[in-house]
Amino acid sequence: MQLDELLRGPVEVTTKGWPALAGALALKDAARQGWNLLRQDLPLPVAVLKASALSHNSRWMRRFLEHFDVRLCPHGKTTMAPQLFARQLADGAFGITVATVQQLMVCRRFGVPRVLMANQLIGRQAIRQVIAELEADPGFEFLCVVDSLAGVEALLAELRDHPLGRPFEVLLEGGAAGGRTGCRSLADALAVARAVAAAPELALVGVEGFEDVMGGGIADAEPKVEAFLEFLVEIASACAKEDLFAPGPVILSAGGSKYFDQVSRIFRGAELGRPVEIVLRSGCYLSHDSKVYTEAFARLSARTPEVEQLGDGLRPALELWAAVQSMPEPGLAILTMGKRDVSHDLDLPLPRQWYRPGLHAGPQDLGAGFQVSGLYDQHTCLRVPADSPLRVGDLVSFGISHPCTTFDKWRLLYVVDDDYTVTEAIRTFF
Amino acid sequence: MQLDELLRGPVEVTTKGWPALAGALALKDAARQGWNLLRQDLPLPVAVLKASALSHNSRWMRRFLEHFDVRLCPHGKTTMAPQLFARQLADGAFGITVATVQQLMVCRRFGVPRVLMANQLIGRQAIRQVIAELEADPGFEFLCVVDSLAGVEALLAELRDHPLGRPFEVLLEGGAAGGRTGCRSLADALAVARAVAAAPELALVGVEGFEDVMGGGIADAEPKVEAFLEFLVEIASACAKEDLFAPGPVILSAGGSKYFDQVSRIFRGAELGRPVEIVLRSGCYLSHDSKVYTEAFARLSARTPEVEQLGDGLRPALELWAAVQSMPEPGLAILTMGKRDVSHDLDLPLPRQWYRPGLHAGPQDLGAGFQVSGLYDQHTCLRVPADSPLRVGDLVSFGISHPCTTFDKWRLLYVVDDDYTVTEAIRTFF
Repeated sequence: MQLDELLRGPVEVTTKGWPALAGALALKDAARQGWNLLRQDLPLPVAVLKASALSHNSRWMRRFLEHFDVRLCPHGKTTMAPQLFARQLADGAFGITVATVQQLMVCRRFGVPRVLMANQLIGRQAIRQVIAELEADPGFEFLCVVDSLAGVEALLAELRDHPLGRPFEVLLEGGAAGGRTGCRSLADALAVARAVAAAPELALVGVEGFEDVMGGGIADAEPKVEAFLEFLVEIASACAKEDLFAPGPVILSAGGSKYFDQVSRIFRGAELGRPVEIVLRSGCYLSHDSKVYTEAFARLSARTPEVEQLGDGLRPALELWAAVQSMPEPGLAILTMGKRDVSHDLDLPLPRQWYRPGLHAGPQDLGAGFQVSGLYDQHTCLRVPADSPLRVGDLVSFGISHPCTTFDKWRLLYVVDDDYTVTEAIRTFF
Repeated sequence: MQLDELLRGPVEVTTKGWPALAGALALKDAARQGWNLLRQDLPLPVAVLKASALSHNSRWMRRFLEHFDVRLCPHGKTTMAPQLFARQLADGAFGITVATVQQLMVCRRFGVPRVLMANQLIGRQAIRQVIAELEADPGFEFLCVVDSLAGVEALLAELRDHPLGRPFEVLLEGGAAGGRTGCRSLADALAVARAVAAAPELALVGVEGFEDVMGGGIADAEPKVEAFLEFLVEIASACAKEDLFAPGPVILSAGGSKYFDQVSRIFRGAELGRPVEIVLRSGCYLSHDSKVYTEAFARLSARTPEVEQLGDGLRPALELWAAVQSMPEPGLAILTMGKRDVSHDLDLPLPRQWYRPGLHAGPQDLGAGFQVSGLYDQHTCLRVPADSPLRVGDLVSFGISHPCTTFDKWRLLYVVDDDYTVTEAIRTFF
């Protein structure tokens, strides 16, 4: 990873979360200002990552991967933060996963050597851009996904116009009925695999899918996830039997951040008669969250008790802080945070702690009875109990549900220590 | 407005929507490339503004303002696009409205001379930043909102530490029970107004509120909106009677993008015994949309038939285009656009037209039976009828509901002519 230019580059005073009074500083210099959230050195709202939770989650995931003998190619779309990608690669990641060519370009700009595009590469601009990147750097490894003959033909048309000196590597995608992309039947999958194998421009290097498209609760989804993963193994076995894979180990890839234990276990059981490399793509483990992935992790621990030997589980690292701006009627506080700042696609933000400058030594738990009742673009409506101590100017922290849709609302987040002193400023590229 | 530096600055190849193969070009040079969306010169998904609709909406609003003799201080939070702010100021806007100090800093960076912060200015960083801006430029005019004694005291504490050579101008906010910020009673409002009037550091220059917090459908909300606006006039009358306003015209301000006819009519009827300046803050009129504001505009036209004499009403300018990436089972298409790209807080995106490169001369209407059934972070699930012509690689356009939450998903949008050739690239600063 080549982060120097990013770290030396200035953060403009127009950047949300940046204390504009400090002027435009180099990104790396944010860590040297001694800024502390509780001392009101940062404008609110602000998004912070707890350094201790990031490190803990990083270590936990390394132990998980080692225990199950699988690799991780974390989905970069969660954070789109090259500084976090660098941390993940330093932790031994297989590469970085992306969903779009723009995300790929962010990886390339900062020197990620291997990118798995867990998505179809569609459209003339997108295909040509990837070919150009492969041509420009013989060391760049790229994988993408195919699930239709039309998609294979579109790749081939561009590859024939712009021949590469090496095969263009693809993964065959299996899908679940009513779900997202991916071949729904073994017959469809084999037809696509045969078309890939027949084209010298392409190389079939594995099979993949995304298991978190089953709908319903986690407990309901688990048997469907299992059946789906077995379907992916069935596709891979059939492709191996027909010798449709390119030389080398066969990649089996799946795994968002809810069922990666099931993925690891079922893929470990695959017997293809040749070496297999299992690649998870979990993107949310590093920041984790306070609701949807907290619940999913509790379920994972119950489903796969052996993870207990890996030590304490994942911790929520991502918090939002806002100020009380108005207490206009009993039971209601309005805060300086809105849809533009925090996830609201799965759950509303979760009030956690409060802090009054000049009064408290550290954040105080809010206790029961505080609930977000609504978000406007730039405001949070917080229902508070009759004995709420909150008043205008107090600071309140929130946990979030679904990190992807909080990260994408910030071009700048901070890593903070347990006292809320800034130890790093992190840029995102959405 | 000072846009030169923005227009001369490069667009990095990591920017979503930018054709990376073109390399990093100056923003202004995007208009000179002859890029055409339908010729696949742009990566997908992409967000475009129809130039013809922007101009039409701009002209319509000018006629509205003239007809009702009111001013417009459009809410900048909708687009956060200085290039569009410049267009609005050239159209005669009173200034630009913001919700946060970060939004203020974007306005200042590009030279907006008057900013109305339709929000409480809360927190040490925020207040000090505004004082610094006012000190740095004697020509800068700034207004913000107060609705509590605590808020007034917090402003005064900072203003006494950092004295300004001129009064700090505030608007008194009225609010509606169960709504957002703002004093709920005349007594509360007068207490705040008296505290402002008693402080030489502050000047009370008007009364404001936000009327679109009533909940329920528009027809249900109308009488509540009317009562709320009359409450604001009542507050202003009481303040005038007690001579709490600073010298000069009294500002009466309200008006999102649904009820600005009611605001204009009711505020026009206010008799304060002194000159009144009515300032709307509608932010969505320029891009408009295809659902929530389209429906609101139909209702506005029915409620206020005299707007017919202003000519054809507002048109949706904002469109998203994505590609079909997979047709994995009958009745389902998966497209390259997701929660990261398009509004989903009020309604899912609305499929409108399709285009097959090499086949069509222009976009074709999709007709009935196409409906978005779900969004993932990076994917759209589109239910299609049995006779759908769509196939992998086709382009599909979508209208949106609530422009604020589409603009904030793009750092770059394009203005296009009716043939979808790029005439301008627009940067946003969220």
